Amino acid sequence: MVQQVGNGLRSATVRTRNLSQILTHLHLEGATTRSALGEVTGLTRSAVGALVGELEAVGLVRELPSEPNGSRGRPSPVVDFHDGASGPAVLAFEILVDSMAVAVVGLGCQVLSEHRIARSREQVSAVDTVRDLAGMAQRCVVEAGSPEIIGAGVAVAGLVRRGGEVAVAPNLGWVDVALAELLAAEFADLRSIDVGNEAQLAALAEARRGVAKGFGDLIYISAEVGIGGAVVSAGGPVVGHGGFAGEVGHIPVNPAGRTCACGAIGCWETEVGERALLRRAGMDSDGGRVEVGRLIELAREGDATASEVFRETAGWIGFGLAGLVNVMNPQMVVLGGMYREAFEFVGDVVVDRLATRVLEPLRKVLVVPSSLGADAALLGAAELAFDRMLPDPVRWRTS
Amino acid sequence: MVQQVGNGLRSATVRTRNLSQILTHLHLEGATTRSALGEVTGLTRSAVGALVGELEAVGLVRELPSEPNGSRGRPSPVVDFHDGASGPAVLAFEILVDSMAVAVVGLGCQVLSEHRIARSREQVSAVDTVRDLAGMAQRCVVEAGSPEIIGAGVAVAGLVRRGGEVAVAPNLGWVDVALAELLAAEFADLRSIDVGNEAQLAALAEARRGVAKGFGDLIYISAEVGIGGAVVSAGGPVVGHGGFAGEVGHIPVNPAGRTCACGAIGCWETEVGERALLRRAGMDSDGGRVEVGRLIELAREGDATASEVFRETAGWIGFGLAGLVNVMNPQMVVLGGMYREAFEFVGDVVVDRLATRVLEPLRKVLVVPSSLGADAALLGAAELAFDRMLPDPVRWRTS
Repeated sequence: MVQQVGNGLRSATVRTRNLSQILTHLHLEGATTRSALGEVTGLTRSAVGALVGELEAVGLVRELPSEPNGSRGRPSPVVDFHDGASGPAVLAFEILVDSMAVAVVGLGCQVLSEHRIARSREQVSAVDTVRDLAGMAQRCVVEAGSPEIIGAGVAVAGLVRRGGEVAVAPNLGWVDVALAELLAAEFADLRSIDVGNEAQLAALAEARRGVAKGFGDLIYISAEVGIGGAVVSAGGPVVGHGGFAGEVGHIPVNPAGRTCACGAIGCWETEVGERALLRRAGMDSDGGRVEVGRLIELAREGDATASEVFRETAGWIGFGLAGLVNVMNPQMVVLGGMYREAFEFVGDVVVDRLATRVLEPLRKVLVVPSSLGADAALLGAAELAFDRMLPDPVRWRTS
Repeated sequence: MVQQVGNGLRSATVRTRNLSQILTHLHLEGATTRSALGEVTGLTRSAVGALVGELEAVGLVRELPSEPNGSRGRPSPVVDFHDGASGPAVLAFEILVDSMAVAVVGLGCQVLSEHRIARSREQVSAVDTVRDLAGMAQRCVVEAGSPEIIGAGVAVAGLVRRGGEVAVAPNLGWVDVALAELLAAEFADLRSIDVGNEAQLAALAEARRGVAKGFGDLIYISAEVGIGGAVVSAGGPVVGHGGFAGEVGHIPVNPAGRTCACGAIGCWETEVGERALLRRAGMDSDGGRVEVGRLIELAREGDATASEVFRETAGWIGFGLAGLVNVMNPQMVVLGGMYREAFEFVGDVVVDRLATRVLEPLRKVLVVPSSLGADAALLGAAELAFDRMLPDPVRWRTS
């Protein structure tokens, strides 16, 4: 809307953008023939060849023997990134309330190794958490064949400032935690450690490689103890001024409702969060994922109460989503976390509720479960780490 | 978030972008010295000179005699667009429920002439509306000194499809109106007629030239009979998949509330729209702007009921806004329409409500009245029209 008044575009930057575009295409789509890269970039065969050569020289891509393609003329060479430990990789971390995970991930989002452990809800300090993650990461790197690690990304269930500080993570009990710094102290060799909100990063992964691939206008809902979210508009994340956008859990939905952990009354989280679900079922509202899992099992077995609990909760999911859909006009809503697992019991009710509460022209919205499942945020953290290199890959490798 | 995989950037496009950047800077900031344009674009003096020459040759800019600046060396020539009828201009149209307006607007958003008339709420057909606008436009062009008209923009209080069709304008009583086509039939010579939602266009104008200038993350609320809105994220509009984003009036806020014109219960509009305000005041809820004006007058005179009506309504404004702020993390919320006029009676309550309902890290949000007032959407329509030319100005003039 506001025209960017930044630097004029000089020819030197054109080369960088073309290098970035080629590597990004390989990262997202996998091995591609040189001639297809020409179509993608709109560049000539020789220009593509020169750019691929530059990427090859810094160890980012390789050319494979081309296979005859049946048509006349020379077959076009195939360009790919390096497999496994022979290429650069990133460390991906995920810190949720009930679990934490580490993975080593190569270009193209190849997961070379991964560890996930349960996390106690007794509030573990950030320092302890980081120490645990560091130990897991060391094992992961060895298991991955010790590739070159070029950076790290962290997904955390909290509000993250631009710069990597966790402003507040209510369900972790963290306030003002310099998470990137703490991690940097454990990993002195890492060039970059970027931290993001878990829902924003899960949405990033779903938009690049999951169910939302190709969908530019998107709402992602992450349901755990708290309700997180992320909005993607025209292919880009809505980040917000401080980087905190997506706190959908605190949309007011019920003026006559319960007090939220944030202090306000009737936030969406008080109607659709894990505690609300368990409370409706008459279960221990602090029972966590184990109890939610039990409730889903009960619903699968046909238990009437469990089904009714999901139906009622789904009505509230739809109520809050309706506002988001009217405001954002997305093409797709992705339900992640516990509502991915319970999608079979909530999906239809949510869709029905949207049909009555969303203005007619905005109603053509797909409601789907997350496809990357429990790993969505972890894969998003890997994407975040690669995003340091992708905009200017040769410079990142040589500077 | 999703990397754009479009065309590779060729050197030819660099020139176009630089031309666009220079003209856009002049359009937004006014007359600028050549040396300042060098700083803005990062280009050399000679490169800027060549680009300015190109823009001059197609009648878009002119160089003014430079004034001595007191420092050593030659003073830098000043570059400006043409004043008044000597430069290209656009037609701007605005169709609201209670009024419609036409203006002729030059580069830099110089309003060369303007007509605004009251519009009857008895549902006037789109054909009649367009005929009235055409007559007003003819007079406006003559009054403006008959400049070259290079395009038109239209702001309408309705949901607008990409392409310029009004999908639905509930408060105008329009469904599926090909507004751009109807206008094109009246203005055969116009190269472009672009139609947008009035709140989205008012936000565009506020972000480029109004109170929100320099604020990249923004929520604009337009309050008339209906409640419209627009979201700006990182300097760009959130448009939505179908172009319909911003229907904030239909955020559910009160499960125990009233039935909305859209058919749903408890939409934000049912608590903060014009009818809700007048109903609370015990006035005719269809009394329109005249009655709202009377209520504002009463509050100014210290009438206790009128003040209480605004206080209660402001609580609901804050309730709905809190959700938007938690989701979007804007730097600024701009209240337009009737809440611009009544800002003195609602502003503080809205701010208080946000303080209790928005998560702490997102609370630093400015709440301000619209600064462009009644003309915001009209000026936004002019910006929309200029946006046809600004990305590739020389080509637009010569093709």
